Amino acid sequence: MESVEFLERGKQLMNYIIDYFDTVDQRKTLPDVEPGYMKSLIPEEAPQKADEWKNVFGDLEKIIMPGITHWQSPHFHAFYPSGTCYASILAEMLSNSLSCVGFSWASSPACTELEFAMMDWLAKMLQLPEEFLSTGEGGGVIQGTASESTFLMLLAARSKALSKHINSSKSIKKLVVYTSDQAHSSVERACLLAAVEYRSVPSNENEEMTGEALEEMIQKDIDNGLIPFYVVATLGTTPSCAFDRLLEVGPVCKKHDIWLHIDAAYAGSSFICPEFRPLLDGVEFADSFNFNPHKWLLVTFDCSTLWLKNKKYLVESFNVDRIYLESKEKEKLLDYRNWQIPLGRRFRSLKIWFVLRLMGINNLQSYIRKHVELAKEFENLVRSSEKFEITHPVTMGIVCFRLKGDDQLTKNLHDALYKDKRIYLIAGASKSRYYLRFVVCSQRTTSDDINYAWKVINELSMTSLRERL
Amino acid sequence: MESVEFLERGKQLMNYIIDYFDTVDQRKTLPDVEPGYMKSLIPEEAPQKADEWKNVFGDLEKIIMPGITHWQSPHFHAFYPSGTCYASILAEMLSNSLSCVGFSWASSPACTELEFAMMDWLAKMLQLPEEFLSTGEGGGVIQGTASESTFLMLLAARSKALSKHINSSKSIKKLVVYTSDQAHSSVERACLLAAVEYRSVPSNENEEMTGEALEEMIQKDIDNGLIPFYVVATLGTTPSCAFDRLLEVGPVCKKHDIWLHIDAAYAGSSFICPEFRPLLDGVEFADSFNFNPHKWLLVTFDCSTLWLKNKKYLVESFNVDRIYLESKEKEKLLDYRNWQIPLGRRFRSLKIWFVLRLMGINNLQSYIRKHVELAKEFENLVRSSEKFEITHPVTMGIVCFRLKGDDQLTKNLHDALYKDKRIYLIAGASKSRYYLRFVVCSQRTTSDDINYAWKVINELSMTSLRERL
Repeated sequence: MESVEFLERGKQLMNYIIDYFDTVDQRKTLPDVEPGYMKSLIPEEAPQKADEWKNVFGDLEKIIMPGITHWQSPHFHAFYPSGTCYASILAEMLSNSLSCVGFSWASSPACTELEFAMMDWLAKMLQLPEEFLSTGEGGGVIQGTASESTFLMLLAARSKALSKHINSSKSIKKLVVYTSDQAHSSVERACLLAAVEYRSVPSNENEEMTGEALEEMIQKDIDNGLIPFYVVATLGTTPSCAFDRLLEVGPVCKKHDIWLHIDAAYAGSSFICPEFRPLLDGVEFADSFNFNPHKWLLVTFDCSTLWLKNKKYLVESFNVDRIYLESKEKEKLLDYRNWQIPLGRRFRSLKIWFVLRLMGINNLQSYIRKHVELAKEFENLVRSSEKFEITHPVTMGIVCFRLKGDDQLTKNLHDALYKDKRIYLIAGASKSRYYLRFVVCSQRTTSDDINYAWKVINELSMTSLRERL
Repeated sequence: MESVEFLERGKQLMNYIIDYFDTVDQRKTLPDVEPGYMKSLIPEEAPQKADEWKNVFGDLEKIIMPGITHWQSPHFHAFYPSGTCYASILAEMLSNSLSCVGFSWASSPACTELEFAMMDWLAKMLQLPEEFLSTGEGGGVIQGTASESTFLMLLAARSKALSKHINSSKSIKKLVVYTSDQAHSSVERACLLAAVEYRSVPSNENEEMTGEALEEMIQKDIDNGLIPFYVVATLGTTPSCAFDRLLEVGPVCKKHDIWLHIDAAYAGSSFICPEFRPLLDGVEFADSFNFNPHKWLLVTFDCSTLWLKNKKYLVESFNVDRIYLESKEKEKLLDYRNWQIPLGRRFRSLKIWFVLRLMGINNLQSYIRKHVELAKEFENLVRSSEKFEITHPVTMGIVCFRLKGDDQLTKNLHDALYKDKRIYLIAGASKSRYYLRFVVCSQRTTSDDINYAWKVINELSMTSLRERL
């Protein structure tokens, strides 16, 4: 493809994208296909000769779109948002054109330096303690996902613990990780990957991890000769957006010299609003903090931002030098390659820069607040109905609710919604109650969409209740 | 940014990108900045109010470009290529707009199914053994980088080994990994991350790992009660593009039931040409195989393709279920979330699809062949000079060479090139000889650029030789 064609095709594709965003609410949110649907639509081998653009472009509606779950639809209320916006899409276009691989300072100084700057900007927007800024021992780095951040910090913590307990033989077998029973699956998975013990701390009636429950478990393990070394606290859990009691958990970690990592994947973005910032109180106890601008700050996936108070356990523990990775002395400190699992890295700070500048903090705050307001609207609708009940406090853009009565009713409703495909929500279960999670996800969601979702839910709940009779 | 503005800005940016590609050869390949250059150019905090596009766009030339190492320049000859092309950039624009997170089949069926299809297309283009196709126990998956693939396969191999040696206490401490002393740093780093022993097998005079050297090391470890479990063979090493002796290494791994992983990050793309396919002979012994279409197949970074013969050690070992990850029974087998370290995943198969269709296998073969020819041209220039010598056989798009005489001469030349900044090459060292690596990287490189590089090298080598007098 030559440059003239690129310009032509690019315009066509941009118009297609604009049209997609403008009309995505008219598509079924969940695709109407069965596993294996694409097999008959795609040849078994790559073409020998170049195909024409018009065929590829035409196949988008024929082959790709029928199988897309529309995360950008205002009727998408599952998981958590996967935000994107025009500013971010443009930044990515430039980044993909430069296609520079910034593993060291010299391999692309702008890529490294803009990332340092953006991580400081974000840290200040969240009012993170100063130790997390790049001006001292700490600093921030962009990872792909929160799962990678959790795993990487576990490895850094393990490294710190092993250097402390160097005289204890078999010490890796004695290491123990703690997190709430409400924490994301990726914490347990990180323990499997790192081959260390995993403890699930029972949450309280509000699904928060308390200092008391954590302390009890840690003390028991210490008494048995084990080595507690890593705690993951969650601010805004995946099942119900609960917040662990950081002000209790923090001192417990301090007391036992345990690495405290905070996973605020979804809720973290809200801390740019002063009214939500108190939810982050206690972050001063943390060794590392992570949230995902790709969830709720309109930066296109993937962009998971991670800060450490002291990067040395990460940078020094896993440093391997080779002549082709050689850096000048004063550049070494800036080499991001030792801050992550992969060697290569994309120019992701560009999209943060575009979004923060072209939106401004004000507009991002309004965007967060609008989602929280829309969630409140949905909460009010649920509360106004005699059939439904709210199961968890609503603080962010997520509402947990269920049909009154036994779980099967809500399960039937969930099944009916999955089959219906107009809106998409997923289920949660806690303290043996089955419920549905309604999350405001799209940048384009309005009150009309909330009412639409409520109408669909009501309509299908009638069937669900009737089936029961 | 509204849709009208997106279209306007997008056109402006596309023209900027076209102009960038057309004139990148006129920029210094290495940027002329010192560490910390950006500090004075960027405010210390994010803006409260939205900034105007024209300011952000204007800052590209003021703030970003002065710090870019131009990986797309025809004068970039460092590391290995980081390919990109217009077709791939367009695919990414669409992928970033859909911004669907395809961790499970249901979370975006098209994202999952196109990836299965593309991994089979590529496998067939490389004539991988049938066991690697998705039709059986095996299959392919897109990772971010080769480092992640190496690490992930190590974890899968560890899991397999531990399940076999379950009765051996402290067995994780006994596990040993083997790779050539020419292998990429990421293998040693993977061992650090996984906390297992690492062995560097001495390569022969051609920098190949032989079966004999490997067998000797393995046997010694077995005699000492250790458990060899993972071997990484490299096809096209980073220092000099050497090829390990797969047909010898394979049977050694087979004999001792050791997981054999092949890292063909750079050279892998060349196997789509029948004349280079023999270099892959012996792949039938491998448990897993990896190469990077983002290096030499014009698919924008990141896109590292990994195949396994039997995915169960990966998928079953690290599976953690939660209600929000629930899949219907028949969809489970298609969930890519257990094939990787992160949970979330981007729609990366779209760019493979665009590139393969819009280029066709023929054009991709021509592109590979052109790079190899240009390397031969450079080799001939070096051979025609009395001052220089070729240090390694030239089989792909890389030429290793040095100034005759002691290493210091070549070191001086390297320093002079780094300071000069017109072209970018990096050094290698092996068998105590210091040399320079000249790699053909850009899609736009022509004979003129080869001659230009040769002119610059000659010019600077004069200084280097004069300094010596």
